[in-house]
Amino acid sequence: MGKSKRNARKDAKDIFLEAIKAAFPETALNKILRLSKTNLKIKDLNLNLSSFENIYVIGAGKAVCPLARGLEKILGHLITSGVVITKYGHSSGLKRIKVIEAGHPIPDENGINGAREILKLAQEATKDDLVLCLLTGGASALTPAPPEGITLSEKQRITKLLVNSGATIQEINAVRKHLSLFKGGNLLKAAYPARVVTLIISDVVGDDISSIASGPTAPDPSTYSDCIDILKKYNLTKNTPASVIKRLELGTAGLIEETPKPGNKIFKNSQNIIIANNSSALSAAKSKAKSLGYNTIILSSAIIGSTKEAAIFFSSVLKEIRASGNPVKAPACVLMGGETTLEVKGKGLGGRNQEFALWAGLEIAGRMGIKILSAGTDGTDGPTDAAGALADSNILKKAKAKNLDPRAFLQDNDSYHFFESIGSLLKTGPTGTNVMDIAVGIVE
Amino acid sequence: MGKSKRNARKDAKDIFLEAIKAAFPETALNKILRLSKTNLKIKDLNLNLSSFENIYVIGAGKAVCPLARGLEKILGHLITSGVVITKYGHSSGLKRIKVIEAGHPIPDENGINGAREILKLAQEATKDDLVLCLLTGGASALTPAPPEGITLSEKQRITKLLVNSGATIQEINAVRKHLSLFKGGNLLKAAYPARVVTLIISDVVGDDISSIASGPTAPDPSTYSDCIDILKKYNLTKNTPASVIKRLELGTAGLIEETPKPGNKIFKNSQNIIIANNSSALSAAKSKAKSLGYNTIILSSAIIGSTKEAAIFFSSVLKEIRASGNPVKAPACVLMGGETTLEVKGKGLGGRNQEFALWAGLEIAGRMGIKILSAGTDGTDGPTDAAGALADSNILKKAKAKNLDPRAFLQDNDSYHFFESIGSLLKTGPTGTNVMDIAVGIVE
Repeated sequence: MGKSKRNARKDAKDIFLEAIKAAFPETALNKILRLSKTNLKIKDLNLNLSSFENIYVIGAGKAVCPLARGLEKILGHLITSGVVITKYGHSSGLKRIKVIEAGHPIPDENGINGAREILKLAQEATKDDLVLCLLTGGASALTPAPPEGITLSEKQRITKLLVNSGATIQEINAVRKHLSLFKGGNLLKAAYPARVVTLIISDVVGDDISSIASGPTAPDPSTYSDCIDILKKYNLTKNTPASVIKRLELGTAGLIEETPKPGNKIFKNSQNIIIANNSSALSAAKSKAKSLGYNTIILSSAIIGSTKEAAIFFSSVLKEIRASGNPVKAPACVLMGGETTLEVKGKGLGGRNQEFALWAGLEIAGRMGIKILSAGTDGTDGPTDAAGALADSNILKKAKAKNLDPRAFLQDNDSYHFFESIGSLLKTGPTGTNVMDIAVGIVE
Repeated sequence: MGKSKRNARKDAKDIFLEAIKAAFPETALNKILRLSKTNLKIKDLNLNLSSFENIYVIGAGKAVCPLARGLEKILGHLITSGVVITKYGHSSGLKRIKVIEAGHPIPDENGINGAREILKLAQEATKDDLVLCLLTGGASALTPAPPEGITLSEKQRITKLLVNSGATIQEINAVRKHLSLFKGGNLLKAAYPARVVTLIISDVVGDDISSIASGPTAPDPSTYSDCIDILKKYNLTKNTPASVIKRLELGTAGLIEETPKPGNKIFKNSQNIIIANNSSALSAAKSKAKSLGYNTIILSSAIIGSTKEAAIFFSSVLKEIRASGNPVKAPACVLMGGETTLEVKGKGLGGRNQEFALWAGLEIAGRMGIKILSAGTDGTDGPTDAAGALADSNILKKAKAKNLDPRAFLQDNDSYHFFESIGSLLKTGPTGTNVMDIAVGIVE
């Protein structure tokens, strides 16, 4: 390249912003939905809207309002009515769709009432109606629907027990679904035989539709009997509320209906369609990076595991580019996404992405022209006002100039204050969408 | 590709074997050294052999004998004489170069005598002589050279204290170099003003020549004073042998000569040349994979960090290829190398590579047509007779058929017996070289 005029820090930010933009509900909708006359095309699906008597819109999530607004713009008066639930402070004016605000991440009565209202609308829909269901991150907590005899706090108690016991997310979800009238396919069952199409902005690694929002319109392979086995496996039967045990036992005995299983006829006439996810955001980032002249690859949109270790691995790829031109030659951009797990032991302020950037920074310190940005697409990394942070190979020099010991900040999980001091926080404000985290690595 | 006739398991093995082959001392030498008449070309270096009165060969390492043999084949009678040290049982017949066998990984008296003999030969070399120094994995332990007044066991004691204290490898090496007449550039100093060219098979992540064999022919930026600071930092001064403290204090006072520092004139006329490393092995593997029809990338030759977490990250790249065709389209081969760190808590049998394969196997279980091989290029993974293991997406089925619980094997660090049971160990026997570990991922 010779002497380059590129501004890699700015490029990294622009590439990340392009990723977020692609995940904006309206952008995603406009890319995926095409209405010509009365034909609505959603990816490979063609819906003849004139064949439906009513079109209802239901849904939940922190980003459900902009998604519903986008849909109103496309379908306009074709929408009969609708109800969506969002987090307090996240509603925005919709014309034909009612918005209910409720508690998140802790569910509350408003959520219960909202879920009931959505279930009621679903039940009223007939075989001649189309139900468009919108799901975005946060939908699960926003739609609590404990069955009769089980209180919300009892449900929260068993969930907490499971989380603390080391149960897998699949196991936790199995129990949750069997304590809900909304999740595990139950919303779809309520709407049957109406035609249901669910549009999803995925904030789940791997985009498993039975995990997103605990799969209200997806089949649930787990059973009441499985749930009892899970409680036994983690020695939780003693501490589980009696009402919960009772329901699981009645269910096992066949006295309460199961969640709808894969192959159930109700799924034949329904679709779950992902309209935006980490992968689509990365694709947009890749196009941007290529347009800026970087040889660009996407490593993965499903990175999980330890934040620190993922940072070390990601950095080793960037170092390899510098050293050998593998896997791509510089100027290079390496993209990845997903959601790592940060073990917090210190008392500092930070988040997965800021800590990722700090670990990665230490790995690339002293190498020439390497930059790493890591940020949450929702614009909020941990309990901070930053989306993430940007580290480069001069990180130790910058730290020294401010008399900071980066390892001490890591020890205290205080990445926010480290990056604040060296002026390398990335702040976008809440973005109104969430497709997990994205890391952008640049080798000039 | 349509219906493929490929045998991905065999391909993965063949690709790995090609990587090892490239790291064989003789293969590497023959690729890098060119003798035409009296001109010896080593990479960019041209040596006019007729300008030297003597050519001496010295060196150490587990693979030094095949390396010396290769050199004898190329240079023949041009070699005046030489001395190399290798591990017990690793010697092979050399014509002009003497072989001494010594203790590894625990140094012994034979090593001390061998190191002395090499230092003596180096000292005898004059400015008209060429000294070719051969270093391969294990050279450090094979060349103990404690200075007068310090015993081998005292040196081992302080090394052990440092290792257990959590000191970094750089810190440990700084102390080691200051307690050695051989390391930290001291061998080169002994040979000065002879012309010295060091040929290295690197088993160190990043190929830092001052780390490989503790850098006998490389500059040492660390000082006696640094060593005292390191002992203080880890509260080791009390337990450090008095003889060691004494030397470090005398050195700090300027009463013992320092190790040669960067910029010292003795380095002007010497070269350290890496003839084989993880990166060159991966390049050979890449060529092989491409010839087998795989879209192939090298992620990195410098993977470090936790074995489990590296396996999770590597797997997520393979899953992404299956899901989206990023970073390359199937049929794909993803290569990486380095040396991860395995924390052993169980009592089972296994090694880094076998455990990597088992963690990775769980990650890719149930995905279609993904295979992962991880193996040590020395053919010996941990204390086992296997080089590594091969996992594929059917791993859970195979485990079930044998009634095995893979997670229980992981819990007990017993990956060897797991893969033995399902017939997926990779055994090559000792390969006679070592450029760390390599992982081959295939997505059909």
